[in-house]
Amino acid sequence: MTMKKLINSAESCVDDALLGLVRASGGLSLLKGHRVVLRSDLENLKGKVALLSGGGSGHEPAHAGYIGAGMLSAAVAGGVFASPPPGSILAAILSLHNAGASGVLLIVKNYTGDRLNFGLAAEQARNQGVAVDMVIVAEDCAFDQPSKAGRRGLCGTVFIHKLAGALAEEGCSLDQIVSKVTEILKRIGTLGVSLSPCSVPGCLPSFDLPPGDMEVGLGIHGEPGIKRSKVASADEVVKTMIDHMTNPSSQSHLPLKSGDCVVVCVNNLGALSCLEMAVVTRSAIICLESRGVVVARVMSGLFMTSLEMAGVSLTLMRADKETLRLIDAKTTAPAWPNLSNVCLSGRSYITEPQTTIKRPQDEKHSEGPLSPVMHKTLEKICSTLLEKQEELNSLDRASGDGDCGNTHAQAARAIQEWLQGHVVPGCPGKLLSVVAGLVQEKMGGSSGALYSLFLTAAAGHVTEGRSNAAAWATAMNAGTEAMKKYGGAAPGDRTMVWCHLVLMWLHCSLSRFFYIMFLLLRSPQKAASGAEATRDLKARAGRASYISPNLVSLPDPGAVAVATILKTILEVLEGRK
Amino acid sequence: MTMKKLINSAESCVDDALLGLVRASGGLSLLKGHRVVLRSDLENLKGKVALLSGGGSGHEPAHAGYIGAGMLSAAVAGGVFASPPPGSILAAILSLHNAGASGVLLIVKNYTGDRLNFGLAAEQARNQGVAVDMVIVAEDCAFDQPSKAGRRGLCGTVFIHKLAGALAEEGCSLDQIVSKVTEILKRIGTLGVSLSPCSVPGCLPSFDLPPGDMEVGLGIHGEPGIKRSKVASADEVVKTMIDHMTNPSSQSHLPLKSGDCVVVCVNNLGALSCLEMAVVTRSAIICLESRGVVVARVMSGLFMTSLEMAGVSLTLMRADKETLRLIDAKTTAPAWPNLSNVCLSGRSYITEPQTTIKRPQDEKHSEGPLSPVMHKTLEKICSTLLEKQEELNSLDRASGDGDCGNTHAQAARAIQEWLQGHVVPGCPGKLLSVVAGLVQEKMGGSSGALYSLFLTAAAGHVTEGRSNAAAWATAMNAGTEAMKKYGGAAPGDRTMVWCHLVLMWLHCSLSRFFYIMFLLLRSPQKAASGAEATRDLKARAGRASYISPNLVSLPDPGAVAVATILKTILEVLEGRK
Repeated sequence: MTMKKLINSAESCVDDALLGLVRASGGLSLLKGHRVVLRSDLENLKGKVALLSGGGSGHEPAHAGYIGAGMLSAAVAGGVFASPPPGSILAAILSLHNAGASGVLLIVKNYTGDRLNFGLAAEQARNQGVAVDMVIVAEDCAFDQPSKAGRRGLCGTVFIHKLAGALAEEGCSLDQIVSKVTEILKRIGTLGVSLSPCSVPGCLPSFDLPPGDMEVGLGIHGEPGIKRSKVASADEVVKTMIDHMTNPSSQSHLPLKSGDCVVVCVNNLGALSCLEMAVVTRSAIICLESRGVVVARVMSGLFMTSLEMAGVSLTLMRADKETLRLIDAKTTAPAWPNLSNVCLSGRSYITEPQTTIKRPQDEKHSEGPLSPVMHKTLEKICSTLLEKQEELNSLDRASGDGDCGNTHAQAARAIQEWLQGHVVPGCPGKLLSVVAGLVQEKMGGSSGALYSLFLTAAAGHVTEGRSNAAAWATAMNAGTEAMKKYGGAAPGDRTMVWCHLVLMWLHCSLSRFFYIMFLLLRSPQKAASGAEATRDLKARAGRASYISPNLVSLPDPGAVAVATILKTILEVLEGRK
Repeated sequence: MTMKKLINSAESCVDDALLGLVRASGGLSLLKGHRVVLRSDLENLKGKVALLSGGGSGHEPAHAGYIGAGMLSAAVAGGVFASPPPGSILAAILSLHNAGASGVLLIVKNYTGDRLNFGLAAEQARNQGVAVDMVIVAEDCAFDQPSKAGRRGLCGTVFIHKLAGALAEEGCSLDQIVSKVTEILKRIGTLGVSLSPCSVPGCLPSFDLPPGDMEVGLGIHGEPGIKRSKVASADEVVKTMIDHMTNPSSQSHLPLKSGDCVVVCVNNLGALSCLEMAVVTRSAIICLESRGVVVARVMSGLFMTSLEMAGVSLTLMRADKETLRLIDAKTTAPAWPNLSNVCLSGRSYITEPQTTIKRPQDEKHSEGPLSPVMHKTLEKICSTLLEKQEELNSLDRASGDGDCGNTHAQAARAIQEWLQGHVVPGCPGKLLSVVAGLVQEKMGGSSGALYSLFLTAAAGHVTEGRSNAAAWATAMNAGTEAMKKYGGAAPGDRTMVWCHLVLMWLHCSLSRFFYIMFLLLRSPQKAASGAEATRDLKARAGRASYISPNLVSLPDPGAVAVATILKTILEVLEGRK
């Protein structure tokens, strides 16, 4: 079966894509009657060398994406993976010539069809008096012994577009550009690997790859490579690639020694994720630097693709100052990346934090009259949450990922551990900050953030000197407000239920709670033992059960956990636990 | 089974990718101990508002790729599709604050985790005296009735990075930026479709999609969308998307009417081929313009991905002059594209060719003494190639795609057709040009180009006034030289065998050929009848057989075709046919 593609038809996809590129770019134009894209500002070519490239489609953004001041003047597209017809190449050459270009350089990848079709057009143009020359890019490092067809032209072509483009923009002559580019061509090498084939629209995939295998040294037309192996780690794959590319016993290797300076292109063959691309980019830089190679510039992205092939090619170009200057020169070509002109090797890329953030749980605290009851409350909350771990998990399996009990247990264990090594501060706000810190760090996820947000916002409102009922009410209000502000519009009922519960607690039974807190402050011993408080609260058993976990209408495990915590606090303060 | 990925491990991929990005960019730096990327030139933030964004990884280049002058100051990364820890967010905020920023704006996508974690860090920073504010991006157009969690934050976030970044760079205050951005947020809408799920490293794919189906309105964390339908044409898919996004009966629609001006982001969700991306881009521009909407700018590429999801999202932002000015402002952020500042709708994007290329086969020719024999030769070549069609196909099936006979038959029929409606010119060079033109146009592929190249290069050397043996020798040499130059290093033995054959012909038996050509010129009637020529050649039957198709050592169908043509020429000239 053929692949799903987001196109209008296999027949129209090349023309549609060219139109899409041209319509989306302010500086490009289509040559009527041909699959030729030109600079809109052809008048700026007057007296300068114009650059023309092209080839089969399916390699986007190559080549039309590289059209602009400082890069190509025009590009000719063939069908998918098919060489463009000489008639269109000739039409492009003549358009550039008629615009007043002093000469036209054809940049051609080393494939029979392209060589012949561009060659034919070049001969025809020459017969018409156009100064035209051609450079063939053939930088593939795959084959130890290339066939007489020579090495293939791959992503290194993009470097040539850039370098020749910068030279042309500076006003170099056709001969000067050809001679410089010919030298540079010897310093470029490319190798690709892929985890998948690709498929031409309307056709079957180009090759089969068993799951877990990768293809090394493949071409950009979906053709298989030189060997197949198991997918290894990115570091290993990149090492294998660079070893192969620079192996002096291969006839198509790129000579590379310690001290050499390179520009690197990490080219996504089409469908590798950006995450993987960045991982491979890191591997390439580290591998090259480990050999003493200076990595001057790195381009990482989609430059010369092979439809939706999930693979990557590495192109290395040995570069001197002059090459770097040309790479850094400005261009308006839409597909050229936003590179900085800083040498990457040797630059500092780690910033030391100027302030170390002190965690509240690391600070030294002093005990106060409230410490024992708060200690006991915390201990009970932890042991209750650990008891309920499986119950919470099981509730969570119905609606979530089934780990609500586990995350609460993580927090509980972290608090237990902290309690063993630390004094519970007499200032309730400080304790809330400590718990906020522990929960944020050890619980993680949305729950950790919600608890921490609540506790952090509440903490500022209760101190050792100010922890009466009014202060606690203000603190809990601040906590719920912060939750509503940052979590209010957030998905999941947990936040809402929590706010709801806390608010109910505040306004119904829990004016009692603040009464207990008030009693605690006046007579901690008594309150802690629960004598007075219990009396006061017993009459409200009905109300207390209002927030019983069993009666929470929504079986949300987070809400059950919150209710459990609130209930435990009540029970401890009542002296029932 | 989990997907193949080019990473080192699921555990290390986020850190590896961040390091890859930072190492590959000249202007980025990692905050030690955190998954935080900062501008290297923090000193340039002094007195300006700093911008911080972030979120789960797997959306690269978001967000760290948007760090640079004129965009973000820093970005915090969480695990793959997981919100970053508040501690790292706080560390990032404090780094920007310590660098002298006048305030810190947090740009947060509307997801619970991000809201809470960024909110928590904001509260903590505020407690430490940092001027910090937050904008929530929630521009998803998927749900007609969004849940109370609100609309999701998607690729529109990138527009906010750019606009807020340009404002900050200009020196706007935190309040000014928040107020402008809050207005702009109402003018953005996004919708995605996908042909495939994605999979978090080490995990199974996020959803199943039957072959041929696509998911509409999905999120960027691999979560399924609002509906599933058959993959339609790109034009239809885009129309469905824009209809849905702008449908006033949806609570999350983007109001859009004729005359509105928009900036469009066509965002590759990860693995859509660049060819498809360009096709979709065309569809989007055409669809919008068909509604009278002015398309001012288009960004097409990878901006906010979902790992290797093969899908695309469209983000539309209604824009005024001021918005466009901010979009066009310079930035050094590596992931921002090279956009031109030209309004796309209304600009001219078709170039008329200044010269019409005249095909040789359309020109008027006059007959000459050589016309009849050349006519007869061509006719015989055509009929012989048509007779051999199946034989050539069968030879080709062994090594190629089995169509060598067909392509030669195409050329033969084109020549036959031309012969019926045209006079054979007396000038041999002109005839060669005609055949070159026909073959180039009707035969196609490498063979067409090779024949055409040979004939084009030869044509200039034989004219009516100069077609003796020496001229023909020069012409054939020029033809083989052109083939060697452009096809010499090309794959396939066809070129080589052809050159070889022609050269043998030239240097062995075919000095005889030129003798015949010489005779033809002196006494065309005689030569054509073959009387004299035959005598001369019969003695060399052995040599003539040297190029017999049956004896060609390589069974290359192209070589057999060339040998057949040469043999037919000989036989006609000898009068044997």
